[in-house]
Amino acid sequence: MPQGQPSVVPVDGLTTRQRRNRPLTILHTGEMKGKSTAAFGLALRGWNQGWSIGVFQFVKSARWKVGEETAFRALGRLHEQTGEGGPVEWHKMGEGWSWSRKAGTEDHAAAALEGWREIARRLAAGQHGVYVLDEFTYPLHWGWVDVDEVVAALRDRPGHQHVVITGRYAPQALVDAADLVVEMTKVKHPMDAGQKGQKGIEW
Amino acid sequence: MPQGQPSVVPVDGLTTRQRRNRPLTILHTGEMKGKSTAAFGLALRGWNQGWSIGVFQFVKSARWKVGEETAFRALGRLHEQTGEGGPVEWHKMGEGWSWSRKAGTEDHAAAALEGWREIARRLAAGQHGVYVLDEFTYPLHWGWVDVDEVVAALRDRPGHQHVVITGRYAPQALVDAADLVVEMTKVKHPMDAGQKGQKGIEW
Repeated sequence: MPQGQPSVVPVDGLTTRQRRNRPLTILHTGEMKGKSTAAFGLALRGWNQGWSIGVFQFVKSARWKVGEETAFRALGRLHEQTGEGGPVEWHKMGEGWSWSRKAGTEDHAAAALEGWREIARRLAAGQHGVYVLDEFTYPLHWGWVDVDEVVAALRDRPGHQHVVITGRYAPQALVDAADLVVEMTKVKHPMDAGQKGQKGIEW
Repeated sequence: MPQGQPSVVPVDGLTTRQRRNRPLTILHTGEMKGKSTAAFGLALRGWNQGWSIGVFQFVKSARWKVGEETAFRALGRLHEQTGEGGPVEWHKMGEGWSWSRKAGTEDHAAAALEGWREIARRLAAGQHGVYVLDEFTYPLHWGWVDVDEVVAALRDRPGHQHVVITGRYAPQALVDAADLVVEMTKVKHPMDAGQKGQKGIEW
Protein backbone atom coordinates (compact mmCIF):
# COMPACT_ATOMS: atom_id res chain seq x y z
CA MET A 1 0.00 0.00 0.00
CA PRO A 2 1.55 3.34 -0.98
CA GLN A 3 2.17 5.55 1.99
CA GLY A 4 2.51 8.73 -0.07
CA GLN A 5 5.33 10.06 2.04
CA PRO A 6 8.37 11.69 0.46
CA SER A 7 11.79 10.58 1.63
CA VAL A 8 13.10 14.16 1.68
CA VAL A 9 11.44 17.56 1.80
CA PRO A 10 12.98 19.88 -0.78
CA VAL A 11 13.80 23.53 -0.20
CA ASP A 12 11.95 24.87 -3.22
CA GLY A 13 9.68 27.55 -1.78
CA LEU A 14 6.53 25.58 -2.67
CA THR A 15 3.66 24.91 -0.29
CA THR A 16 2.70 21.32 0.51
CA ARG A 17 -0.36 21.64 -1.71
CA GLN A 18 1.64 23.03 -4.60
CA ARG A 19 4.14 20.26 -4.17
CA ARG A 20 1.40 17.64 -3.90
CA ASN A 21 -0.45 18.55 -7.08
CA ARG A 22 2.21 18.56 -9.72
CA PRO A 23 1.78 17.28 -13.23
CA LEU A 24 3.89 14.17 -13.68
CA THR A 25 5.66 12.62 -16.63
CA ILE A 26 5.57 8.88 -16.05
CA LEU A 27 7.50 6.30 -18.05
CA HIS A 28 6.78 2.56 -18.03
CA THR A 29 9.62 0.76 -19.72
CA GLY A 30 11.50 -2.55 -19.55
CA GLU A 31 11.19 -5.85 -21.35
CA MET A 32 8.24 -7.26 -19.43
CA LYS A 33 4.45 -7.21 -19.52
CA GLY A 34 2.60 -4.62 -17.47
CA LYS A 35 3.76 -1.38 -19.11
CA SER A 36 0.51 -0.66 -20.95
CA THR A 37 -1.82 -2.35 -18.47
CA ALA A 38 -0.38 -0.23 -15.65
CA ALA A 39 -0.75 2.92 -17.78
CA PHE A 40 -4.41 2.13 -18.41
CA GLY A 41 -4.91 1.31 -14.72
CA LEU A 42 -3.53 4.75 -13.92
CA ALA A 43 -5.87 6.29 -16.49
CA LEU A 44 -8.77 4.64 -14.60
CA ARG A 45 -7.72 6.66 -11.55
CA GLY A 46 -7.73 9.82 -13.63
CA TRP A 47 -11.13 8.95 -15.10
CA ASN A 48 -12.46 8.58 -11.57
CA GLN A 49 -11.16 12.11 -10.81
CA GLY A 50 -13.28 13.39 -13.68
CA TRP A 51 -10.26 14.25 -15.79
CA SER A 52 -10.28 14.13 -19.56
CA ILE A 53 -8.44 11.00 -20.75
CA GLY A 54 -6.60 11.02 -24.08
CA VAL A 55 -5.12 7.72 -25.27
CA PHE A 56 -2.80 7.69 -28.27
CA GLN A 57 -1.63 4.25 -29.36
CA PHE A 58 1.43 4.23 -31.59
CA VAL A 59 0.67 0.77 -32.97
CA LYS A 60 1.15 -0.12 -36.61
CA SER A 61 -1.82 -2.41 -37.04
CA ALA A 62 -5.46 -1.34 -37.15
CA ARG A 63 -6.33 -4.81 -35.93
CA TRP A 64 -4.41 -4.50 -32.68
CA LYS A 65 -7.14 -3.95 -30.12
CA VAL A 66 -6.73 -4.39 -26.40
CA GLY A 67 -9.61 -5.02 -24.00
CA GLU A 68 -8.93 -1.71 -22.31
CA GLU A 69 -10.10 0.10 -25.45
CA THR A 70 -13.60 -1.37 -25.20
CA ALA A 71 -13.72 -0.71 -21.46
CA PHE A 72 -12.55 2.91 -21.78
CA ARG A 73 -14.93 3.60 -24.64
CA ALA A 74 -17.72 2.25 -22.39
CA LEU A 75 -16.56 4.52 -19.56
CA GLY A 76 -16.51 7.48 -21.96
CA ARG A 77 -20.09 6.80 -23.01
CA LEU A 78 -21.05 6.46 -19.34
CA HIS A 79 -19.57 9.90 -18.73
CA GLU A 80 -21.58 11.38 -21.61
CA GLN A 81 -24.78 9.81 -20.29
CA THR A 82 -24.43 10.31 -16.53
CA GLY A 83 -21.59 12.75 -15.95
CA GLU A 84 -19.74 10.11 -13.94
CA GLY A 85 -15.96 10.12 -14.32
CA GLY A 86 -14.31 12.00 -17.15
CA PRO A 87 -14.51 12.07 -20.95
CA VAL A 88 -12.42 9.59 -22.94
CA GLU A 89 -10.78 9.83 -26.35
CA TRP A 90 -8.98 6.83 -27.84
CA HIS A 91 -6.83 7.31 -30.92
CA LYS A 92 -4.90 4.63 -32.78
CA MET A 93 -2.21 5.20 -35.35
CA GLY A 94 -2.68 1.90 -37.20
CA GLU A 95 -6.22 2.67 -38.32
CA GLY A 96 -5.36 6.25 -39.25
CA TRP A 97 -5.52 8.94 -36.56
CA SER A 98 -9.19 9.78 -36.02
CA TRP A 99 -8.67 13.53 -36.46
CA SER A 100 -7.02 12.92 -39.82
CA ARG A 101 -8.81 12.20 -43.07
CA LYS A 102 -6.17 9.70 -44.03
CA ALA A 103 -6.72 5.97 -43.60
CA GLY A 104 -4.03 3.81 -42.08
CA THR A 105 -0.79 4.31 -43.97
CA GLU A 106 2.31 2.29 -44.70
CA ASP A 107 4.40 5.35 -43.87
CA HIS A 108 4.61 4.69 -40.15
CA ALA A 109 7.27 7.35 -39.60
CA ALA A 110 5.06 10.08 -41.02
CA ALA A 111 2.03 8.77 -39.15
CA ALA A 112 3.93 8.71 -35.86
CA LEU A 113 5.16 12.27 -36.36
CA GLU A 114 1.65 13.43 -37.19
CA GLY A 115 0.37 11.78 -34.00
CA TRP A 116 3.04 13.44 -31.90
CA ARG A 117 2.38 16.88 -33.40
CA GLU A 118 -1.32 16.60 -32.52
CA ILE A 119 -0.39 15.61 -28.96
CA ALA A 120 1.94 18.61 -28.75
CA ARG A 121 -0.90 20.91 -29.82
CA ARG A 122 -3.17 19.41 -27.18
CA LEU A 123 -0.52 19.72 -24.49
CA ALA A 124 -0.03 23.40 -25.35
CA ALA A 125 -3.81 23.89 -25.21
CA GLY A 126 -4.19 21.99 -21.93
CA GLN A 127 -6.76 19.67 -23.47
CA HIS A 128 -6.51 16.52 -21.34
CA GLY A 129 -5.89 15.65 -17.70
CA VAL A 130 -4.16 12.38 -18.53
CA TYR A 131 -2.35 11.44 -21.74
CA VAL A 132 -1.45 7.82 -22.38
CA LEU A 133 1.15 7.65 -25.15
CA ASP A 134 1.15 3.90 -25.59
CA GLU A 135 4.18 2.38 -27.35
CA PHE A 136 5.49 5.90 -27.96
CA THR A 137 9.08 4.99 -27.11
CA TYR A 138 9.44 3.13 -30.41
CA PRO A 139 9.03 6.12 -32.76
CA LEU A 140 11.47 7.94 -30.49
CA HIS A 141 13.90 5.02 -30.54
CA TRP A 142 13.72 4.77 -34.32
CA GLY A 143 14.22 8.53 -34.74
CA TRP A 144 10.80 9.12 -36.32
CA VAL A 145 10.04 11.70 -33.66
CA ASP A 146 12.74 13.94 -32.20
CA VAL A 147 13.17 13.25 -28.50
CA ASP A 148 14.40 16.78 -27.75
CA GLU A 149 11.21 18.21 -29.24
CA VAL A 150 9.17 15.88 -27.02
CA VAL A 151 11.15 16.75 -23.90
CA ALA A 152 10.72 20.48 -24.59
CA ALA A 153 6.96 20.13 -25.14
CA LEU A 154 6.60 18.14 -21.92
CA ARG A 155 8.69 20.66 -19.97
CA ASP A 156 6.73 23.66 -21.26
CA ARG A 157 3.22 22.23 -20.97
CA PRO A 158 0.85 24.44 -18.99
CA GLY A 159 -1.55 23.53 -16.20
CA HIS A 160 -2.00 20.14 -14.60
CA GLN A 161 -1.60 17.50 -17.30
CA HIS A 162 -0.20 14.06 -16.47
CA VAL A 163 1.58 12.17 -19.25
CA VAL A 164 2.22 8.41 -19.20
CA ILE A 165 4.51 6.95 -21.86
CA THR A 166 5.01 3.22 -22.41
CA GLY A 167 7.38 1.01 -24.37
CA ARG A 168 10.83 -0.53 -24.45
CA TYR A 169 14.05 1.22 -25.47
CA ALA A 170 13.19 4.57 -23.86
CA PRO A 171 15.81 7.15 -24.92
CA GLN A 172 17.97 8.42 -22.06
CA ALA A 173 16.78 12.01 -22.61
CA LEU A 174 13.22 10.86 -21.95
CA VAL A 175 14.26 8.95 -18.81
CA ASP A 176 16.04 12.11 -17.63
CA ALA A 177 12.95 14.23 -18.29
CA ALA A 178 10.48 11.87 -16.57
CA ASP A 179 9.46 12.30 -12.94
CA LEU A 180 8.68 8.64 -12.41
CA VAL A 181 10.23 5.74 -14.28
CA VAL A 182 9.21 2.13 -13.69
CA GLU A 183 11.02 -0.73 -15.31
CA MET A 184 8.96 -3.91 -15.72
CA THR A 185 11.47 -6.67 -15.17
CA LYS A 186 11.01 -10.31 -16.06
CA VAL A 187 11.26 -12.81 -13.27
CA LYS A 188 9.37 -15.54 -15.07
CA HIS A 189 7.28 -15.64 -18.24
CA PRO A 190 5.06 -18.51 -19.42
CA MET A 191 6.23 -18.06 -23.02
CA ASP A 192 9.58 -19.36 -21.80
CA ALA A 193 7.72 -22.59 -21.07
CA GLY A 194 6.00 -22.66 -24.46
CA GLN A 195 2.83 -20.81 -23.48
CA LYS A 196 1.36 -18.78 -26.36
CA GLY A 197 -0.29 -15.41 -26.03
CA GLN A 198 -3.97 -15.62 -25.16
CA LYS A 199 -7.06 -13.44 -25.08
CA GLY A 200 -7.77 -11.59 -21.86
CA ILE A 201 -4.06 -11.66 -21.03
CA GLU A 202 -2.12 -10.28 -23.99
CA TRP A 203 -5.00 -8.28 -25.46
CA MET B 1 3.78 -4.81 -28.78
CA PRO B 2 3.59 -8.39 -27.57
CA GLN B 3 4.17 -10.88 -30.33
CA GLY B 4 2.59 -13.78 -28.48
CA GLN B 5 5.22 -16.22 -29.70
CA PRO B 6 6.74 -18.77 -27.35
CA SER B 7 10.50 -19.12 -27.34
CA VAL B 8 10.27 -22.91 -27.17
CA VAL B 9 7.56 -25.43 -27.98
CA PRO B 10 7.20 -27.93 -25.17
CA VAL B 11 6.69 -31.64 -25.65
CA ASP B 12 3.64 -31.94 -23.43
CA GLY B 13 1.09 -33.68 -25.66
CA LEU B 14 -1.18 -30.60 -25.72
CA THR B 15 -2.69 -29.08 -28.85
CA THR B 16 -1.87 -25.48 -29.70
CA ARG B 17 -5.34 -24.43 -28.59
CA GLN B 18 -5.04 -26.24 -25.28
CA ARG B 19 -1.66 -24.67 -24.75
CA ARG B 20 -2.95 -21.26 -25.72
CA ASN B 21 -5.89 -21.15 -23.34
CA ARG B 22 -4.39 -22.02 -20.01
CA PRO B 23 -5.34 -20.45 -16.72
CA LEU B 24 -2.44 -18.35 -15.47
CA THR B 25 -1.21 -17.42 -12.03
CA ILE B 26 0.32 -13.98 -12.38
CA LEU B 27 2.38 -12.21 -9.73
CA HIS B 28 3.19 -8.48 -9.73
CA THR B 29 5.83 -7.79 -7.15
CA GLY B 30 8.79 -5.48 -6.51
CA GLU B 31 9.22 -2.18 -4.72
CA MET B 32 7.78 0.11 -7.35
CA LYS B 33 4.42 1.51 -8.43
CA GLY B 34 2.44 -0.30 -11.09
CA LYS B 35 1.73 -3.64 -9.40
CA SER B 36 -1.95 -2.94 -8.68
CA THR B 37 -2.59 -0.65 -11.65
CA ALA B 38 -1.26 -3.33 -14.02
CA ALA B 39 -3.45 -5.95 -12.31
CA PHE B 40 -6.53 -3.79 -12.78
CA GLY B 41 -5.52 -3.07 -16.38
CA LEU B 42 -5.38 -6.83 -16.93
CA ALA B 43 -8.81 -7.19 -15.31
CA LEU B 44 -10.13 -4.70 -17.90
CA ARG B 45 -9.04 -7.14 -20.59
CA GLY B 46 -10.90 -9.92 -18.81
CA TRP B 47 -13.99 -7.72 -18.41
CA ASN B 48 -13.91 -7.12 -22.14
CA GLN B 49 -13.90 -10.91 -22.69
CA GLY B 50 -17.13 -11.10 -20.69
CA TRP B 51 -15.44 -12.91 -17.80
CA SER B 52 -16.59 -12.55 -14.22
CA ILE B 53 -14.16 -10.29 -12.33
CA GLY B 54 -13.56 -10.81 -8.61
CA VAL B 55 -11.38 -8.24 -6.82
CA PHE B 56 -10.24 -8.91 -3.26
CA GLN B 57 -8.27 -6.10 -1.66
CA PHE B 58 -6.26 -7.11 1.39
CA VAL B 59 -6.05 -3.54 2.70
CA LYS B 60 -6.41 -2.67 6.37
CA SER B 61 -8.25 0.59 5.99
CA ALA B 62 -11.87 1.00 4.91
CA ARG B 63 -10.93 4.47 3.70
CA TRP B 64 -8.37 3.25 1.20
CA LYS B 65 -10.19 3.60 -2.10
CA VAL B 66 -8.52 3.62 -5.48
CA GLY B 67 -10.05 5.14 -8.59
CA GLU B 68 -10.20 1.71 -10.21
CA GLU B 69 -12.88 0.69 -7.70
CA THR B 70 -15.29 3.36 -8.93
CA ALA B 71 -14.52 2.57 -12.55
CA PHE B 72 -14.97 -1.19 -12.13
CA ARG B 73 -18.20 -0.75 -10.18
CA ALA B 74 -19.41 1.40 -13.08
CA LEU B 75 -18.39 -1.31 -15.56
CA GLY B 76 -20.21 -3.90 -13.43
CA ARG B 77 -23.41 -1.83 -13.49
CA LEU B 78 -22.99 -1.39 -17.24
CA HIS B 79 -22.82 -5.17 -17.59
CA GLU B 80 -26.01 -5.59 -15.56
CA GLN B 81 -27.81 -3.00 -17.69
CA THR B 82 -26.55 -3.82 -21.18
CA GLY B 83 -24.81 -7.19 -21.01
CA GLU B 84 -21.58 -5.58 -22.21
CA GLY B 85 -18.40 -7.01 -20.70
CA GLY B 86 -18.54 -9.21 -17.61
CA PRO B 87 -19.91 -8.96 -14.06
CA VAL B 88 -17.74 -7.34 -11.38
CA GLU B 89 -17.45 -7.97 -7.66
CA TRP B 90 -15.19 -5.80 -5.51
CA HIS B 91 -14.43 -6.86 -1.94
CA LYS B 92 -12.30 -4.99 0.57
CA MET B 93 -10.96 -6.39 3.82
CA GLY B 94 -10.68 -3.06 5.63
CA GLU B 95 -14.39 -2.35 5.55
CA GLY B 96 -15.32 -5.93 6.49
CA TRP B 97 -15.65 -8.51 3.72
CA SER B 98 -18.99 -7.90 2.03
CA TRP B 99 -20.10 -11.55 2.34
CA SER B 100 -19.47 -11.41 6.10
CA ARG B 101 -21.77 -9.86 8.68
CA LYS B 102 -18.80 -8.49 10.55
CA ALA B 103 -17.72 -4.88 10.22
CA GLY B 104 -14.08 -4.01 9.73
CA THR B 105 -12.04 -5.59 12.49
CA GLU B 106 -8.78 -4.84 14.25
CA ASP B 107 -7.87 -8.51 13.92
CA HIS B 108 -6.29 -8.19 10.49
CA ALA B 109 -4.82 -11.71 10.61
CA ALA B 110 -8.24 -13.31 11.12
CA ALA B 111 -9.79 -11.06 8.48
CA ALA B 112 -7.09 -11.93 5.95
CA LEU B 113 -7.54 -15.65 6.58
CA GLU B 114 -11.31 -15.34 6.23
CA GLY B 115 -10.81 -13.53 2.91
CA TRP B 116 -8.48 -16.20 1.61
CA ARG B 117 -10.83 -19.04 2.64
CA GLU B 118 -13.67 -17.41 0.67
CA ILE B 119 -11.39 -17.08 -2.36
CA ALA B 120 -10.44 -20.75 -2.01
CA ARG B 121 -14.13 -21.72 -2.01
CA ARG B 122 -14.73 -19.63 -5.12
CA LEU B 123 -11.70 -21.12 -6.89
CA ALA B 124 -12.95 -24.62 -6.14
CA ALA B 125 -16.39 -23.65 -7.46
CA GLY B 126 -14.99 -21.95 -10.57
CA GLN B 127 -16.81 -18.74 -9.76
CA HIS B 128 -14.74 -16.07 -11.53
CA GLY B 129 -12.76 -15.75 -14.75
CA VAL B 130 -10.25 -13.34 -13.22
CA TYR B 131 -9.31 -12.96 -9.57
CA VAL B 132 -7.32 -9.92 -8.46
CA LEU B 133 -5.85 -10.59 -5.03
CA ASP B 134 -4.55 -7.08 -4.37
CA GLU B 135 -1.87 -6.72 -1.68
CA PHE B 136 -2.25 -10.43 -0.92
CA THR B 137 1.49 -11.02 -0.54
CA TYR B 138 1.51 -9.22 2.82
CA PRO B 139 -0.73 -11.67 4.74
CA LEU B 140 1.41 -14.43 3.21
CA HIS B 141 4.64 -12.66 4.19
CA TRP B 142 3.40 -12.12 7.73
CA GLY B 143 2.28 -15.74 8.08
CA TRP B 144 -1.41 -14.89 8.47
CA VAL B 145 -2.25 -17.14 5.55
CA ASP B 146 -0.31 -20.34 4.86
CA VAL B 147 1.47 -20.10 1.51
CA ASP B 148 1.43 -23.88 0.98
CA GLU B 149 -2.35 -23.88 1.33
CA VAL B 150 -2.55 -21.10 -1.28
CA VAL B 151 -0.21 -22.86 -3.69
CA ALA B 152 -2.23 -26.09 -3.38
CA ALA B 153 -5.54 -24.29 -3.99
CA LEU B 154 -4.10 -22.52 -7.04
CA ARG B 155 -2.64 -25.76 -8.39
CA ASP B 156 -5.89 -27.70 -7.95
CA ARG B 157 -8.32 -25.07 -9.21
CA PRO B 158 -10.63 -26.34 -11.97
CA GLY B 159 -11.52 -24.75 -15.30
CA HIS B 160 -10.13 -21.56 -16.76
CA GLN B 161 -9.61 -19.10 -13.90
CA HIS B 162 -6.81 -16.52 -14.07
CA VAL B 163 -5.40 -15.28 -10.77
CA VAL B 164 -3.39 -12.06 -10.39
CA ILE B 165 -1.65 -11.43 -7.06
CA THR B 166 0.05 -8.14 -6.16
CA GLY B 167 2.36 -6.87 -3.43
CA ARG B 168 5.93 -6.77 -2.19
CA TYR B 169 7.76 -9.54 -0.35
CA ALA B 170 6.23 -12.40 -2.35
CA PRO B 171 7.19 -15.70 -0.70
CA GLN B 172 9.46 -17.89 -2.82
CA ALA B 173 6.90 -20.70 -2.88
CA LEU B 174 4.43 -18.33 -4.54
CA VAL B 175 7.04 -17.19 -7.08
CA ASP B 176 7.74 -20.84 -7.85
CA ALA B 177 4.03 -21.57 -8.30
CA ALA B 178 3.31 -18.57 -10.55
CA ASP B 179 3.37 -18.83 -14.34
CA LEU B 180 4.25 -15.18 -14.87
CA VAL B 181 6.14 -12.96 -12.44
CA VAL B 182 6.79 -9.28 -13.09
CA GLU B 183 8.97 -7.23 -10.81
CA MET B 184 8.26 -3.51 -10.85
CA THR B 185 11.66 -1.93 -10.43
CA LYS B 186 12.36 1.65 -9.50
CA VAL B 187 14.40 3.68 -11.91
CA LYS B 188 13.24 7.05 -10.61
CA HIS B 189 10.49 8.14 -8.23
CA PRO B 190 9.28 11.71 -7.61
CA MET B 191 9.02 11.06 -3.85
CA ASP B 192 12.81 10.91 -3.88
CA ALA B 193 12.65 14.57 -4.95
CA GLY B 194 10.14 15.50 -2.25
CA GLN B 195 6.96 14.91 -4.27
CA LYS B 196 4.04 13.77 -2.12
CA GLY B 197 1.41 11.28 -3.17
CA GLN B 198 -1.45 12.83 -5.12
CA LYS B 199 -4.95 12.00 -6.27
CA GLY B 200 -5.30 10.36 -9.64
CA ILE B 201 -1.79 8.96 -9.32
CA GLU B 202 -1.53 7.12 -6.01
CA TRP B 203 -5.26 6.47 -5.61
